[in-house]
Amino acid sequence: MNGNRFGRLFQVTTFGESHGEAMGCTISGCPAGLELSEEDIQEDLDRRKPGQSMITTSRGEPDDVSIKSGIQDGYTTGTPIGLVIQNKDARSGKYEPFITAPRPSHGDFTYSAKFGTRNWGGGGRSSARETVNWVAAGAIAKKLLAREGIELKAHVNQIGDVEAPEVSFEQIKEHSEENDVRCADPETAAEMQELIEEYQEEGDSIGGSIYFEAQGVPVGLGAPRFDSLSARLGQAMMAVPATTAFEFGLGREAREWTGKERNDDWEFDDEGNPTPVENDHGGIQGGISSGEPIYGEVTLHAPTSIPKSQQTADWETGEIKEEKVIGRHDPVLPPRGVPVVEAMLALTLVDFMLLSGRLNPDRVDDQPGEYDTDYHPSNPQNE
Amino acid sequence: MNGNRFGRLFQVTTFGESHGEAMGCTISGCPAGLELSEEDIQEDLDRRKPGQSMITTSRGEPDDVSIKSGIQDGYTTGTPIGLVIQNKDARSGKYEPFITAPRPSHGDFTYSAKFGTRNWGGGGRSSARETVNWVAAGAIAKKLLAREGIELKAHVNQIGDVEAPEVSFEQIKEHSEENDVRCADPETAAEMQELIEEYQEEGDSIGGSIYFEAQGVPVGLGAPRFDSLSARLGQAMMAVPATTAFEFGLGREAREWTGKERNDDWEFDDEGNPTPVENDHGGIQGGISSGEPIYGEVTLHAPTSIPKSQQTADWETGEIKEEKVIGRHDPVLPPRGVPVVEAMLALTLVDFMLLSGRLNPDRVDDQPGEYDTDYHPSNPQNE
Amino acid sequence: MNGNRFGRLFQVTTFGESHGEAMGCTISGCPAGLELSEEDIQEDLDRRKPGQSMITTSRGEPDDVSIKSGIQDGYTTGTPIGLVIQNKDARSGKYEPFITAPRPSHGDFTYSAKFGTRNWGGGGRSSARETVNWVAAGAIAKKLLAREGIELKAHVNQIGDVEAPEVSFEQIKEHSEENDVRCADPETAAEMQELIEEYQEEGDSIGGSIYFEAQGVPVGLGAPRFDSLSARLGQAMMAVPATTAFEFGLGREAREWTGKERNDDWEFDDEGNPTPVENDHGGIQGGISSGEPIYGEVTLHAPTSIPKSQQTADWETGEIKEEKVIGRHDPVLPPRGVPVVEAMLALTLVDFMLLSGRLNPDRVDDQPGEYDTDYHPSNPQNE
Amino acid sequence: MNGNRFGRLFQVTTFGESHGEAMGCTISGCPAGLELSEEDIQEDLDRRKPGQSMITTSRGEPDDVSIKSGIQDGYTTGTPIGLVIQNKDARSGKYEPFITAPRPSHGDFTYSAKFGTRNWGGGGRSSARETVNWVAAGAIAKKLLAREGIELKAHVNQIGDVEAPEVSFEQIKEHSEENDVRCADPETAAEMQELIEEYQEEGDSIGGSIYFEAQGVPVGLGAPRFDSLSARLGQAMMAVPATTAFEFGLGREAREWTGKERNDDWEFDDEGNPTPVENDHGGIQGGISSGEPIYGEVTLHAPTSIPKSQQTADWETGEIKEEKVIGRHDPVLPPRGVPVVEAMLALTLVDFMLLSGRLNPDRVDDQPGEYDTDYHPSNPQNE
Repeated sequence: MNGNRFGRLFQVTTFGESHGEAMGCTISGCPAGLELSEEDIQEDLDRRKPGQSMITTSRGEPDDVSIKSGIQDGYTTGTPIGLVIQNKDARSGKYEPFITAPRPSHGDFTYSAKFGTRNWGGGGRSSARETVNWVAAGAIAKKLLAREGIELKAHVNQIGDVEAPEVSFEQIKEHSEENDVRCADPETAAEMQELIEEYQEEGDSIGGSIYFEAQGVPVGLGAPRFDSLSARLGQAMMAVPATTAFEFGLGREAREWTGKERNDDWEFDDEGNPTPVENDHGGIQGGISSGEPIYGEVTLHAPTSIPKSQQTADWETGEIKEEKVIGRHDPVLPPRGVPVVEAMLALTLVDFMLLSGRLNPDRVDDQPGEYDTDYHPSNPQNE
Repeated sequence: MNGNRFGRLFQVTTFGESHGEAMGCTISGCPAGLELSEEDIQEDLDRRKPGQSMITTSRGEPDDVSIKSGIQDGYTTGTPIGLVIQNKDARSGKYEPFITAPRPSHGDFTYSAKFGTRNWGGGGRSSARETVNWVAAGAIAKKLLAREGIELKAHVNQIGDVEAPEVSFEQIKEHSEENDVRCADPETAAEMQELIEEYQEEGDSIGGSIYFEAQGVPVGLGAPRFDSLSARLGQAMMAVPATTAFEFGLGREAREWTGKERNDDWEFDDEGNPTPVENDHGGIQGGISSGEPIYGEVTLHAPTSIPKSQQTADWETGEIKEEKVIGRHDPVLPPRGVPVVEAMLALTLVDFMLLSGRLNPDRVDDQPGEYDTDYHPSNPQNE
Repeated sequence: MNGNRFGRLFQVTTFGESHGEAMGCTISGCPAGLELSEEDIQEDLDRRKPGQSMITTSRGEPDDVSIKSGIQDGYTTGTPIGLVIQNKDARSGKYEPFITAPRPSHGDFTYSAKFGTRNWGGGGRSSARETVNWVAAGAIAKKLLAREGIELKAHVNQIGDVEAPEVSFEQIKEHSEENDVRCADPETAAEMQELIEEYQEEGDSIGGSIYFEAQGVPVGLGAPRFDSLSARLGQAMMAVPATTAFEFGLGREAREWTGKERNDDWEFDDEGNPTPVENDHGGIQGGISSGEPIYGEVTLHAPTSIPKSQQTADWETGEIKEEKVIGRHDPVLPPRGVPVVEAMLALTLVDFMLLSGRLNPDRVDDQPGEYDTDYHPSNPQNE
Repeated sequence: MNGNRFGRLFQVTTFGESHGEAMGCTISGCPAGLELSEEDIQEDLDRRKPGQSMITTSRGEPDDVSIKSGIQDGYTTGTPIGLVIQNKDARSGKYEPFITAPRPSHGDFTYSAKFGTRNWGGGGRSSARETVNWVAAGAIAKKLLAREGIELKAHVNQIGDVEAPEVSFEQIKEHSEENDVRCADPETAAEMQELIEEYQEEGDSIGGSIYFEAQGVPVGLGAPRFDSLSARLGQAMMAVPATTAFEFGLGREAREWTGKERNDDWEFDDEGNPTPVENDHGGIQGGISSGEPIYGEVTLHAPTSIPKSQQTADWETGEIKEEKVIGRHDPVLPPRGVPVVEAMLALTLVDFMLLSGRLNPDRVDDQPGEYDTDYHPSNPQNE
């Protein structure tokens, strides 16, 4: 099996299981000359980590990242960046009823059937724990994008039937991290929190969705047709665990709009360049970024591991039985999914920045082709 | 720019512009020993081709496919299959107003800005004409899948606000090709047709959606995480021109379901293997096929090229002007999109059949490793 | 089977068999704005084509290339370039003795065993005819490289035991196309010609080798370790039909040199940058181009198809028999291999020019990021 | 920069610098069900590690490998295998004279020019230390190949002008590990040892070559043309540090052989299948394995880091100076290169075993498609 790689030029390769010794990933294609520390990465990991609130799993993982290579004197060197994150609280052994009887709608059955085995002590490779790698790699991508004036942010816009009102990008940046749900609208956040706790008490879980937006993306990213910006975002987001829908721009509603309604007329911007009057197209035209904000939504189904009793079929005993999934699980996914969605958005965009030549693949603080070996801040002769 | 390739082992590489000399694609990774003729491919091309009804563009393209390589005596040889489809009715020259003034929400602006040029005489590479290649390649994929007992079919399930009732896979197979809209429910089809004609008369266009389903898919396809079956389907479908949403299983609605509601309990099938009681998971668990039918929806926005007057900005003259897009365009995309969605579904599945070793990459009518050079039907000594 | 693609960003995908209807390839990743015509490509095809002299096969192929896409008004548009070359003189039917009895050391047996079939009427996909595609794609690569001041050329430096003296790059450029053997040293060329004719008369064939050199390659190309410049050249050259050895720099002789002897000391060039005193390292250090000329050698074994009687084993009849390969075959490969080696060198270098950001992937006549849609020569408004 | 990945389906991704914290690699595509322990990997690492004899660098690295993921109860699970090897003796600081003055023929200059920086404290990413990852991954590949009856082995066949006589595969297996030089012929080994020590004492180094052979390779591996078995071996071997030549079969000598001499006639084997009388073709015909042993040679130039004084150019001071490379370096590379060449051969072959469907990509101890989750030795229910 492969499937542990993302990106054409900014390439992320991951390993690790939920109850194994460590998670880790290798990032290659990061240009030299980017200032980077473990703290830069840790910040996003802390937003994803378990145990951060009452509505996340109580598994106690510090998720401390360790950079093993690719950095010198605080700057990237252009060589692969190896990251390792130890699993500290991988208490296994609570899944006995499910060793030969698959958890409903989990990956137990499909992994066992495909490989003839799986990690019995937990979700193994199918666990959302794997996304710790994505968030770590995404943090590096975000730093690169920020240098180019690209900002991106996500927030939770729906839990169950509680839907957030439309909020601005500035509101999302300002308010989404202020509450445990990561919804930029404080009142909705409170309602969502209440709803989640209700399901949590019942031993059930609930679905929800995440809205994402990127601003400052230059015109021209995307490699239509199969690698159009929307196609690659589709892959990136549908890879997020538990995702069942990906939409950009008007998304699913576009089916009810006419061409005249949806089409965005052109006017001129201050510099005399054509610019669309509105942004119903969601920042992508013909599969290529238009310069307008890119926005969309990702739907995550309810967590499948729930304390409520469910029916399973034991292939060893031939018995049908009712079992509860004991363990430490999230009652809802979007709050911790926010940094994951941001990471996948960042990884997709930075890859296209490299693919389109807008970002120098060798070094970010100088032009290619020039011979100049002494400019670099990490060159000891320059101190 | 790249982006003209799809597939890891069953690889499709395309070329061609809407108003160029020819479209074409190369399929590599098709095993030897598959019976294949131009007719096999032509059948699906005819379902996609323009001019097939009043609600499709009147451009007169026979879309005759010519196989240039990879076939001998009616069987594939395991070598790359080169296909060419001539453009016969590429009347250009009606787009003058839009040469330096981008059509609203079309790829004109983004292509021009990216490449500093584009095919002025039409949609060029951004045109949906490119999908003729996908359908051709998809027809070969379907033949391979059929050998393995995998069937797939799509139909139009919504146009504007006209929504089809739920229909069975059998109904889709039987009825979807009986009307111009390609909706499996005849009454809804009539309503859709009426709605489309209404918008067509107004010089406007309308959005819609396509439901797809695959049956007989074995357990075990998918390479989680980044190449999970859902992630790859996400890329495949989001590459379809005008797509703004991809959903599988419960799709967008999953956000409102609880874990208990959505989870599918396990029972035993007739052979004593665990099988889910329902299929709310949409045939994919943990990113891997579960053996249940795979189903989902694709939303296509309204065609952007409409006769109605729209505002554009001419970067040459600095003028804001109102223009109509004169040409031969579809008032709605899903009817011709049905074979395209089927093709992308087939290409994704056949690739995973090869990746998972369920399909022999060298030859389909024999086992690998055995030395047997004379078995093949195209061997003249066997006649 | 795949294996019909070369390149990461400058991607060539080929199809075609020696006795099929047509050969063809798709080039994607060529930036927009390159002036390109069929003549540009034809020139190199004519150097590779059969029937050009007494020491090449008499098969009569004009090898006329037709550009199907990717060009507008004489300039590339950044979209895939589709090329087709018809097979005109694919007389089959002379290989009957070898349908079920493999030709010695040819690909007959391995193709048949792998695919359970092969193109009985000739070499099929294993024929060197496939390299017509490589030369076509290579011609485009050369044009791109020439813009950047990169020049490359090959010549035949050994046939049998006739070895050419060392010649300069200028001599190679000036003299190698002056004789049928394509050896830059006229006297050696005459000796080689004599030797070839001798073997040809005997019904035998002979091996030889090609020396290649590239000048003007900037410092910094190569992606160590697995995609170091030498590793990628290794793959490129070992893909050339009949190649049994690839060497760069001192090549095989390096085994007898000491470190002190082989190491190239540093001095300063006119601009005060370090530059090696000699070039025993062959233009590549640590897997990355050093700015010095890149040079090396490729050994091609003798053509396997010879009129002389050889022993084969018929798997249909169980008979051991003596047969002659009747057909139109080259008595020696390097003379026609020269443009092939140049093509693979050019394709490798242009790919790294893109990968290293030294060549703009979107357009060659302008800088990325700038919005400027009207500059392009093919823009009709500019005339 | 990328270039840290090898393999299409059996994928190795590496990280690490010679003087960084750790080396590591991720192997994905290894089927489930392979018995695997750290000891299996350690054995080959010990053959490659520094300090094993007087003719290797004295750097003290235990090179203990730690498996972080992909294993359960001693068997692979089909998920990515993460390996980490700590750097214990990365004494830096001896390279001061060369921080702004490149070592002759080393990667110092090219890395600095490309990235504007490099790991000043040693060879960094360009160091042969990186091959510890290759050998670790190769050990897993070898285990998989051994299951399929494929054996491979290399030995040192030339150092300077001391050349080993031809030896059989059995001799290589039996004797090559008996001496420090890793030459299968004991007398030649002694001569080589003497020669190496001579150069070592002079403060110089010397080149050499490695012969490799694989037996039991089935017919049908290779994806001509660009991914022919010889092309992929070419890339694999040319990636080995210091390699300047790759040859297979007759290699460079093939240029002096006629077709009649080199062609291998066909006879029948005991089972009545065609088999070549000799193996001058080196086990590859038409780019595909023929079933005969695959053999060839790799030339490694002399180590560039030598104690002898050499001239360099300091770009900081503008000074030309004579400097000695102080450090712990090998006087010759092939003895430690033997396991590296074996690893690259194994990685190439196992990849093609998967690509050709001869090895099940999901699990090695059962057939695909069958649903059978309880067979696996690591299933606790089976104990």
